[in-house]
Amino acid sequence: MMKEVSIPNRIIMTPGPVEVDPRVLRAMSMPILGQYDPVFRGLMGEVSELLKIPFETKNTHTFAIDGTSRSGLEAAMLGLIEERDRVLIPAFGRFAYLWAELAERAGADIKMIEKEWGGTFEPSEVIAAIKEYQPKVLAMVHGETSTGQMQELKEIGRYCQENDVLFIVDAVATFASTPVKVDEWGIDIAVGGTQKGLSVPSGMSTITYNERVEKILTSRYQKELGLDPKVRNKRFIKSNYLDLSQIQRYWSAEGINHHTEATSMIYAIHEGLRLVQAEGLTDRYARHKLNEQAMVTGLKAMGLSIFGDPATKLPTVTCIEVPEGVDEAALRSTLLSNFGVEIAGSFGSLAGKAWRIGNMGYSSRKENVLLTLAALEASLLVNGAQINKGEGVLAAMKVYQEN
Amino acid sequence: MMKEVSIPNRIIMTPGPVEVDPRVLRAMSMPILGQYDPVFRGLMGEVSELLKIPFETKNTHTFAIDGTSRSGLEAAMLGLIEERDRVLIPAFGRFAYLWAELAERAGADIKMIEKEWGGTFEPSEVIAAIKEYQPKVLAMVHGETSTGQMQELKEIGRYCQENDVLFIVDAVATFASTPVKVDEWGIDIAVGGTQKGLSVPSGMSTITYNERVEKILTSRYQKELGLDPKVRNKRFIKSNYLDLSQIQRYWSAEGINHHTEATSMIYAIHEGLRLVQAEGLTDRYARHKLNEQAMVTGLKAMGLSIFGDPATKLPTVTCIEVPEGVDEAALRSTLLSNFGVEIAGSFGSLAGKAWRIGNMGYSSRKENVLLTLAALEASLLVNGAQINKGEGVLAAMKVYQEN
Repeated sequence: MMKEVSIPNRIIMTPGPVEVDPRVLRAMSMPILGQYDPVFRGLMGEVSELLKIPFETKNTHTFAIDGTSRSGLEAAMLGLIEERDRVLIPAFGRFAYLWAELAERAGADIKMIEKEWGGTFEPSEVIAAIKEYQPKVLAMVHGETSTGQMQELKEIGRYCQENDVLFIVDAVATFASTPVKVDEWGIDIAVGGTQKGLSVPSGMSTITYNERVEKILTSRYQKELGLDPKVRNKRFIKSNYLDLSQIQRYWSAEGINHHTEATSMIYAIHEGLRLVQAEGLTDRYARHKLNEQAMVTGLKAMGLSIFGDPATKLPTVTCIEVPEGVDEAALRSTLLSNFGVEIAGSFGSLAGKAWRIGNMGYSSRKENVLLTLAALEASLLVNGAQINKGEGVLAAMKVYQEN
Repeated sequence: MMKEVSIPNRIIMTPGPVEVDPRVLRAMSMPILGQYDPVFRGLMGEVSELLKIPFETKNTHTFAIDGTSRSGLEAAMLGLIEERDRVLIPAFGRFAYLWAELAERAGADIKMIEKEWGGTFEPSEVIAAIKEYQPKVLAMVHGETSTGQMQELKEIGRYCQENDVLFIVDAVATFASTPVKVDEWGIDIAVGGTQKGLSVPSGMSTITYNERVEKILTSRYQKELGLDPKVRNKRFIKSNYLDLSQIQRYWSAEGINHHTEATSMIYAIHEGLRLVQAEGLTDRYARHKLNEQAMVTGLKAMGLSIFGDPATKLPTVTCIEVPEGVDEAALRSTLLSNFGVEIAGSFGSLAGKAWRIGNMGYSSRKENVLLTLAALEASLLVNGAQINKGEGVLAAMKVYQEN
């Protein structure tokens, strides 16, 4: 007979999934409601309203999709792209290639412009590429977790709004931990996740889009065959499960039968968003910035180097260069098996060469920063690194004392 | 400020989502683990093994997909279908049209054969259609919740195995509550859900497939662009999120980075499957049959008519004809608002004409059957139905006393 699930204690300092507030876990343990129970439909409506807070948007169509973050990215791409539509994707890390992967599968003609990892684009570079390539859609990553860099979006978004380009943004790594100003920045579709800044378990993505997008979706709407075979559309979206024109109607008062909403995840996201509202965006972002500052100061005091341009550093991820002679994976194993502390490696050209420490949501706490620094110092020493002993934690504590 | 989620007490007797065992809810409230934490990867491996029990299969590739049931159906269709491939879909209720919807979006040439609602197909009818249409894929529904009918599959499956037809089955309404013998019946891909017989919240689908399917998936495998741009494939699957060739590798020892696994749902499904194992399939199915018998006996004693052919009735759903002069939706509203009892209406030609009472998983309990019958009798009387007073509950109690 299989034994019950038993969970060891962990300090999760990866770029996601991160620790979940106990209040969210408690919400998940509540009994199920039917998907058309008026109480449950009411909760869905509240989730839609609450989501507008971290997205800083007035968009009517703001809801959750029952799939992990990339399901929201794929839904966004499939909703806008028809065969041979042009998509421009500026890449400064791994996750732009996920946009490209999704665009390719949606049948787009793709143009990528690439930046060496460790920096971001000047808005003028992206705008120049738009002028040259004349895309229907510009797809960008806001916070690139693979490199710990964050792209400035406002100027690019404004250009897109004025020049009939659809601007879709992967805000998975920034949502609910760093400002994502959907309306002010001129973002047509923004996609967030649950398992990072929001500190809700993985399994849902969050999405918001404006009337420009709604118009396109409506023009492609095809009712599900089992519900009404008469409403056909030659330009139908190439997925049923990720068809935003249907999901939008599931979330609206119309309430068509699409999927069966993931009840417990709705409870979780409701509670996670309620905690965002209670903390307030300003305080929440300030907390993340302070914990980032303490972590970076501690790492530097230890003698480690932070990867990438500090001017465009992503507050929620700190990317550290692995010192000469240290085995990247062995260090992480020491950390996890002795201290229960989890950090991450990276991808592509940074695989084996960088560690990534997350600073997101409920994991972004003073004790987590200090414990991680302490555990990291010991683990580095055990793995043969030359670092400044006893400096890291004290430098971080000083940051907290002074702020 | 938004208030906390607060849940009214419910007796959920719909065809899903159904009530969740408190032990599953408790499992969901445990802290998060990282997706590559060895403990978490171990849990995923256990889930894969446990899933083989209700699927009655030895298939290596047996896992969960992070989306509601239809995400598994879509993944199955997308994995097998390339542009203009032929799919045969026999329809005896609404959910065959979901298969058709998914096949259409995957680019298939579709042939449907249709049966009047309330019955199922003779295997010979399906086999004759296979011979005539020569499809690559035969897609069928095992338990049709819209009509409360269950299709015999074994003879059809054997024919498919011997004649190079791929047989894919929607077992969402039967999985973990009624036998689904994947290997014995010759099913190439079977898809289940979590929110019905398994009594885990909605948000995941379960899938199993054999080596015939694996071979096709492998021939279409394309590595994600952000992980390795060199592994390209002209026949790539048209979704990244629902690409079984990638998800299979995420679940295997290779453990490629695809999505971020839905941690809490893995805990839930682990516990739900553990409870299936502990109860044993024979006892579990017998429990469902007994509760079905009590419910049907009680409904008939009340004077209500059961819709559809009794010889092929789906044990997990009882479809009741709405008596003359009774408002279908008003009755459900009376039930929910006064008794907290939820039952369902139906779709298509049965919309407004039938109620559906579920009998699935943790909801399939003696007290739920009896309370539902009692509440239904009172609600029918309040809504002006002519029924036999006081007969239903006693008739059901007698079934329990005699068994």
